[in-house]
Amino acid sequence: MDSPMYGELALFSATANRPLAEEIAASLRTELRGADVFQFANENIFVRLHGSVRSDDVFIIQSMTVPVHKNIMELLIMLDTVRRDSAGRITAVTPYFAYGRTDKKDQPRVPITARLLADMITVAGADRVLTMDLHAGQIQGFFTIPVDEISAFSLLCDYFVGKRLEDLVVVAADIGAAKKSRNFAEALDVPLAIIEKRRTVDGDKTTALNVIGEVRDCNVIIFDDEIDTAGTMTSAAHFLKEWGVRDIYACATHAVFSPPATRRLKEAPFKEIVVTDTVDIPGVKRLPNLTILSVGQLLGEVIRRIHLGMSVGEMFDE
Amino acid sequence: MDSPMYGELALFSATANRPLAEEIAASLRTELRGADVFQFANENIFVRLHGSVRSDDVFIIQSMTVPVHKNIMELLIMLDTVRRDSAGRITAVTPYFAYGRTDKKDQPRVPITARLLADMITVAGADRVLTMDLHAGQIQGFFTIPVDEISAFSLLCDYFVGKRLEDLVVVAADIGAAKKSRNFAEALDVPLAIIEKRRTVDGDKTTALNVIGEVRDCNVIIFDDEIDTAGTMTSAAHFLKEWGVRDIYACATHAVFSPPATRRLKEAPFKEIVVTDTVDIPGVKRLPNLTILSVGQLLGEVIRRIHLGMSVGEMFDE
Amino acid sequence: MDSPMYGELALFSATANRPLAEEIAASLRTELRGADVFQFANENIFVRLHGSVRSDDVFIIQSMTVPVHKNIMELLIMLDTVRRDSAGRITAVTPYFAYGRTDKKDQPRVPITARLLADMITVAGADRVLTMDLHAGQIQGFFTIPVDEISAFSLLCDYFVGKRLEDLVVVAADIGAAKKSRNFAEALDVPLAIIEKRRTVDGDKTTALNVIGEVRDCNVIIFDDEIDTAGTMTSAAHFLKEWGVRDIYACATHAVFSPPATRRLKEAPFKEIVVTDTVDIPGVKRLPNLTILSVGQLLGEVIRRIHLGMSVGEMFDE
Amino acid sequence: MDSPMYGELALFSATANRPLAEEIAASLRTELRGADVFQFANENIFVRLHGSVRSDDVFIIQSMTVPVHKNIMELLIMLDTVRRDSAGRITAVTPYFAYGRTDKKDQPRVPITARLLADMITVAGADRVLTMDLHAGQIQGFFTIPVDEISAFSLLCDYFVGKRLEDLVVVAADIGAAKKSRNFAEALDVPLAIIEKRRTVDGDKTTALNVIGEVRDCNVIIFDDEIDTAGTMTSAAHFLKEWGVRDIYACATHAVFSPPATRRLKEAPFKEIVVTDTVDIPGVKRLPNLTILSVGQLLGEVIRRIHLGMSVGEMFDE
Amino acid sequence: MDSPMYGELALFSATANRPLAEEIAASLRTELRGADVFQFANENIFVRLHGSVRSDDVFIIQSMTVPVHKNIMELLIMLDTVRRDSAGRITAVTPYFAYGRTDKKDQPRVPITARLLADMITVAGADRVLTMDLHAGQIQGFFTIPVDEISAFSLLCDYFVGKRLEDLVVVAADIGAAKKSRNFAEALDVPLAIIEKRRTVDGDKTTALNVIGEVRDCNVIIFDDEIDTAGTMTSAAHFLKEWGVRDIYACATHAVFSPPATRRLKEAPFKEIVVTDTVDIPGVKRLPNLTILSVGQLLGEVIRRIHLGMSVGEMFDE
Amino acid sequence: MDSPMYGELALFSATANRPLAEEIAASLRTELRGADVFQFANENIFVRLHGSVRSDDVFIIQSMTVPVHKNIMELLIMLDTVRRDSAGRITAVTPYFAYGRTDKKDQPRVPITARLLADMITVAGADRVLTMDLHAGQIQGFFTIPVDEISAFSLLCDYFVGKRLEDLVVVAADIGAAKKSRNFAEALDVPLAIIEKRRTVDGDKTTALNVIGEVRDCNVIIFDDEIDTAGTMTSAAHFLKEWGVRDIYACATHAVFSPPATRRLKEAPFKEIVVTDTVDIPGVKRLPNLTILSVGQLLGEVIRRIHLGMSVGEMFDE
Repeated sequence: MDSPMYGELALFSATANRPLAEEIAASLRTELRGADVFQFANENIFVRLHGSVRSDDVFIIQSMTVPVHKNIMELLIMLDTVRRDSAGRITAVTPYFAYGRTDKKDQPRVPITARLLADMITVAGADRVLTMDLHAGQIQGFFTIPVDEISAFSLLCDYFVGKRLEDLVVVAADIGAAKKSRNFAEALDVPLAIIEKRRTVDGDKTTALNVIGEVRDCNVIIFDDEIDTAGTMTSAAHFLKEWGVRDIYACATHAVFSPPATRRLKEAPFKEIVVTDTVDIPGVKRLPNLTILSVGQLLGEVIRRIHLGMSVGEMFDE
Repeated sequence: MDSPMYGELALFSATANRPLAEEIAASLRTELRGADVFQFANENIFVRLHGSVRSDDVFIIQSMTVPVHKNIMELLIMLDTVRRDSAGRITAVTPYFAYGRTDKKDQPRVPITARLLADMITVAGADRVLTMDLHAGQIQGFFTIPVDEISAFSLLCDYFVGKRLEDLVVVAADIGAAKKSRNFAEALDVPLAIIEKRRTVDGDKTTALNVIGEVRDCNVIIFDDEIDTAGTMTSAAHFLKEWGVRDIYACATHAVFSPPATRRLKEAPFKEIVVTDTVDIPGVKRLPNLTILSVGQLLGEVIRRIHLGMSVGEMFDE
Repeated sequence: MDSPMYGELALFSATANRPLAEEIAASLRTELRGADVFQFANENIFVRLHGSVRSDDVFIIQSMTVPVHKNIMELLIMLDTVRRDSAGRITAVTPYFAYGRTDKKDQPRVPITARLLADMITVAGADRVLTMDLHAGQIQGFFTIPVDEISAFSLLCDYFVGKRLEDLVVVAADIGAAKKSRNFAEALDVPLAIIEKRRTVDGDKTTALNVIGEVRDCNVIIFDDEIDTAGTMTSAAHFLKEWGVRDIYACATHAVFSPPATRRLKEAPFKEIVVTDTVDIPGVKRLPNLTILSVGQLLGEVIRRIHLGMSVGEMFDE
Repeated sequence: MDSPMYGELALFSATANRPLAEEIAASLRTELRGADVFQFANENIFVRLHGSVRSDDVFIIQSMTVPVHKNIMELLIMLDTVRRDSAGRITAVTPYFAYGRTDKKDQPRVPITARLLADMITVAGADRVLTMDLHAGQIQGFFTIPVDEISAFSLLCDYFVGKRLEDLVVVAADIGAAKKSRNFAEALDVPLAIIEKRRTVDGDKTTALNVIGEVRDCNVIIFDDEIDTAGTMTSAAHFLKEWGVRDIYACATHAVFSPPATRRLKEAPFKEIVVTDTVDIPGVKRLPNLTILSVGQLLGEVIRRIHLGMSVGEMFDE
Repeated sequence: MDSPMYGELALFSATANRPLAEEIAASLRTELRGADVFQFANENIFVRLHGSVRSDDVFIIQSMTVPVHKNIMELLIMLDTVRRDSAGRITAVTPYFAYGRTDKKDQPRVPITARLLADMITVAGADRVLTMDLHAGQIQGFFTIPVDEISAFSLLCDYFVGKRLEDLVVVAADIGAAKKSRNFAEALDVPLAIIEKRRTVDGDKTTALNVIGEVRDCNVIIFDDEIDTAGTMTSAAHFLKEWGVRDIYACATHAVFSPPATRRLKEAPFKEIVVTDTVDIPGVKRLPNLTILSVGQLLGEVIRRIHLGMSVGEMFDE
Repeated sequence: MDSPMYGELALFSATANRPLAEEIAASLRTELRGADVFQFANENIFVRLHGSVRSDDVFIIQSMTVPVHKNIMELLIMLDTVRRDSAGRITAVTPYFAYGRTDKKDQPRVPITARLLADMITVAGADRVLTMDLHAGQIQGFFTIPVDEISAFSLLCDYFVGKRLEDLVVVAADIGAAKKSRNFAEALDVPLAIIEKRRTVDGDKTTALNVIGEVRDCNVIIFDDEIDTAGTMTSAAHFLKEWGVRDIYACATHAVFSPPATRRLKEAPFKEIVVTDTVDIPGVKRLPNLTILSVGQLLGEVIRRIHLGMSVGEMFDE
């Protein structure tokens, strides 16, 4: 597999999601390149590549999951390492991009950390970024280097189409997920409903839920880009159950599963929880009703096309 | 009015919205500084300041309205002029920021022009930006220089509170306006409804509208950040009228009013259209039911605080 | 035609001078790539490429002619588009580069817009620039990216050599055109004369002309890099006619022809006006005595050499 | 205390070494400014300032100690926050700067993380840096923004002068510490010895120690810039004890104390271990023979001088 | 003399033109700040400031004269020194700016060194530049930092007005000096003539001179921005003498006087050679007919105005 | 020899060390490309390439030796030239890198010139750097572009291994050379001693020497990275002779030989002085006991590998 412009394809995995990295490598019929990546007793990260990447077309695969900041630094330090080892081109592959919700100043005196992260990745030496389902599309604009943002949308959509569910409604877990849920509903050709969370008059701590749209007696998919602590999603599920819906499905690309997500999901009335493997989910969090769809082949094919200079958009009939 | 750090406050107006600039100057009890700003026969813009701005704290006021690109270039060239004339600090004041809807790649092979604009403003010499109600909050993150984004939200909200309308519902004109409309509804303590636009099955040209939430027999405010061609807002109004609502109000910060907005608004069943003067609205577009609230005092006060190094957030009890 | 380093040659035309772009494409035996480039009702420009340019060697052809600022923004937005679509290399091709005369501060408190433009083109993503007959050679130095500046000098010179005119003198239309005119005179091996414009003593509004050098009974070519409003050139022609010259030719690379150029040229005593097609000249401005030499083949050949990594200089025996 | 150029002095502490930050504030007779700095369940850091820093002269105090990467990110995010809140000037105060030993490529295919860190601090918005006893002076050169590097050298030196030890020798714990130890020996006007560590011939795992210089029957101070895992220092102490030295003192600026430092130090024959509080040392690591000298007043005075635009060098008679 | 924004005015002189620096200091009733600036045996330059410049408004005065590259490096190293010593603002004062003639690619495969120099000055830490009579005004555009370019034009003009010469003509020494000479002629209200140099037909080594315009029986001033080897100016003088002119004056801002300038000027028929002291002219080059006008007061006044944030343009009635 | 990514290999030599450049070219079985590189009478450097380097993989070889600043500028101007001539990739090859000892602020108010130099090389257009035995490894970190730092260590080591000297000790000429000398001693498997220089109590001008470690009756190699004025090395030699050593060898990579190095070396009791040709040593400095090992083949092989995208590290079994 020869690129017209660069040396060999060189895939590296940092430590956050090695199973996914191996799946990507397997789909490309290649092996991950070797590198020592570990922490000294003082927590400082050490990186040493086993072989030269001079002129190679390097992809460094790292999800920004817990431990988040160690994993971010690992990515940055590996970028610096391959840059200083004269890589031909460097792509940061971040199946899960952290800090996506810190993308604007919705109150004064707060940071825009997602932009800071974009600048850090760029200053560390990345020539390009490959990522999946950013919390907001505008995060692409935080970069000036090219970003390929791939969606698990079709993967998730096809899965539900295969289930042939009747009387289905897609429900946005909150108003922020409305637009994405609408697109998902449109793709499945089913109606949309939205759960609205509102601060109650008597104080700003408690919130009241309300559903906008028809859901009674329907099967529902609660849709979002990620499941973090699962608070929004599980309270939506409990609330919908009271409204008399039938089966409830949770659907999201990124299974962040911060505590107490596992407990909450276990207690919530989900028939099935459908996610992907952009985040490496430890065994203890793999509930019986959890379905994990792999994005490995998808990312492998995208990397192959980037390496060969072929269109990525046409994979998605775009 | 002395800044601890810079020379005098120097307000300049480019040509897009001089009435607003004058209102700002009046609220600051000062006058706009003089500058020649015109186009030669070959359309090239000429700028010459009447006096020196050396060490001054310069604010250049320019809305990015039609003719959009001439007005953008005017802003950029004025930035370059004051930079090369050794201004102490330079703030680009853009009451209306164009290209806000080109803030992400929602399809492949398109630009992110809002980011490009941010880079252009920075490269031309701006040290900071003052703007109002950006289409998306993430556009702040397109800049690394500080951005003060001010909202006309309170101004608009207070206006409607003063009207004491009963059985009121805020309606998002489409799914993209859902979040802002929810905030507006919450501030007015009234329910929210959302109009959903969906491509019909038989083809991708025609779209069908649907309202999610209860609106019948209510007074409604259709809310958005801007009214451009008014297509979305007026079809929402016609659609709601069929659903049996009472009075319909349109409410938005930016009155872009691109053709055929004026005709559409005239034909639509609006009781009142409430906007601000971030865009200079020519007489011919000033319909009888149009209410224009001025942001001049608001911007004047913010500029005063920026100049004196005082908190802007506390103006909004933040 | 394979480049050693990039993917395919991808030629795009923005909207300012499509006939020239097509001539360039034809000379390269290829076709212009497809792209939607248009303005919405709010004048915001939309760009969408019809196909992927991933890894390709992209050339975007755009003259910065009227409407100047729309055309500049079109170029910048197309640069951003192909950068974000992962083009392998990006060349901005600007047969006519605007704002060339705003290249220095000849009075205080004015901008240097040509430098600003250079920075904007760079920040938008261009890797290199191909342009023709800049107003001042120093504008190349406004860029740090490589600039290929091609001259129509030989094209124009060969044309006049072919006419075998006798008793010929090259006249610089004003002192600013002296050096270029000297080079043209030297190439044709004929004498030089210079028209000097000077503010009269009684006021700074009226100017007096004077010719330095011998022109009586000669055929003259008035030479400049561009004809804008044609004021300088036509008053030179009228003035020379009084001095008793024979036939008068106008010669310039760029036919900007801002109003009232067409009227002035029509009324002036030119035997022939010789220009190139770097600017797309509409039919109404094509006077009977206007000769347009095409630079299409020249630019095509230069693009071919850039793409293949071959010397451009040796085309000109340099 | 008024700066000629900026608003008020605004001291912030991130979470790594709040006691030192409070000591600095106390020495400046001021209080630390308030800010929320905490992690969400997904570990993402949240920062919100309690009040505006517009135009203020901001100092953010953060040692890069364990958890190292969280603490680095906290610093970077706070820098971004104050930049976006329009701080007048921003100084990153890092009493302990991590990754100092990753400052060169002493083998191929490794990073230079200290430089990466410098770039990250700069890209996050710092205008200047204040730090103490960098592992290598060249790290200052990794920045282009001004760095004030303060030394605890005099503090440590004065402490030992006060002890009036006889027959004293300064010993460099390894060859890398030779130059700093020489300077310390020179300041105390006592001889220098150096411990040399060398890989043995039979394999590259075991090392043999050797002392270059005279130490028998002397009191010795083993000197280094930091005590990390204490491996080098404690094996030096054991080794010297065998050579028949009298009392052994350990002396270093930074008490990193990574495991198993505490155990090693407890077991080693140190009369006293003298360090500073650039690193916040938890109670469990405070051995009975540990002396901690505070750098709080020193840093406070330096910050005062930076704020007022006074010479810092003259504090050290330079 | 207090600046509103910076600490004290701090004038430094590098070694190229200390007499001028002292004259500037005297006109400001201040003294040059002390600094060690010398070369080691290996020619490496050492710089150490005698006192702190923290927060000060620093001006470093250095003409880029022989030894040119040592002097350029001295300037750059001093810029780095004051930047790293936390200067409040840094102005590079270059009365003579070298490489002004390498400002464009007039043939392929050559550098644009003047732009390179601008980038070097910027990267070394200058916030602004103060210079005199650049070879081409466009060199200002090579910088994005503000440049104050001052002209000795009035100084020279006033001097000749004071001489009340009759039948005066200003002669451009070659076509490149035509525009500046025209301005000088216009200011003196006298005619202009131009000497044209042209390669002869028989080969490209020898050149023939020609004068365009009337000079016979006139007093002439040959004008240029600098006198380098004096080849152009002295061959113009000899040539004009043959044409029967009366007295010949040479006039230029910069007395570069590279060999064999002194010999040539001595042998040429100049009545008087009028220059300024932007270049430090050694005694051996001070011919009896050489008049040196000092720019010290002019630069002093400009520096005063920059420091105080006052208009510089109004010094010149602009 | 075809690179996968660039056009032809193009080797250029600036003027500082042409013999080495020719040796490099010979080892690559190619010829140096032609270029005019000279100074005008005003010392300004002129550069013009004889042929195009469009798309080529350019290496510019220049040692930063006397005249240091002219040679630095030559390098920078050649970088600018090839960049503007559209080179495909540009490597600055600096066998000797000047200002290596100005790499930190060991006192206040001094520059860090080595960093400044790194920035200048980058801003002039270099994509990468190839250099040898930097004074401090951290200088690599002054660059963000990739640096290949090659060592003459093996070359020098092998030479001494071949001599089979008995009772050998490596002596660091001063404390600063301790670490490098230790590595050299370790490679030769012989003991290390260190000469310590200390300011005497009675004043800071005179210094006293002391040797730490055993040297009596041994053959010694005094090791350092460069021999500049040879002061340190020759006083070490005289001092060691007094201590009763046998033969003394001097060993260093860079033979800077600033005055009075030649006289000092001639008078010192060296059996042999072993250096390389990174600096071009004029005949007059070639003492009878001087051995010069060439690095030409080494650099040639490294350049070949860089050009072909092959590992450089594996040349050194790394």
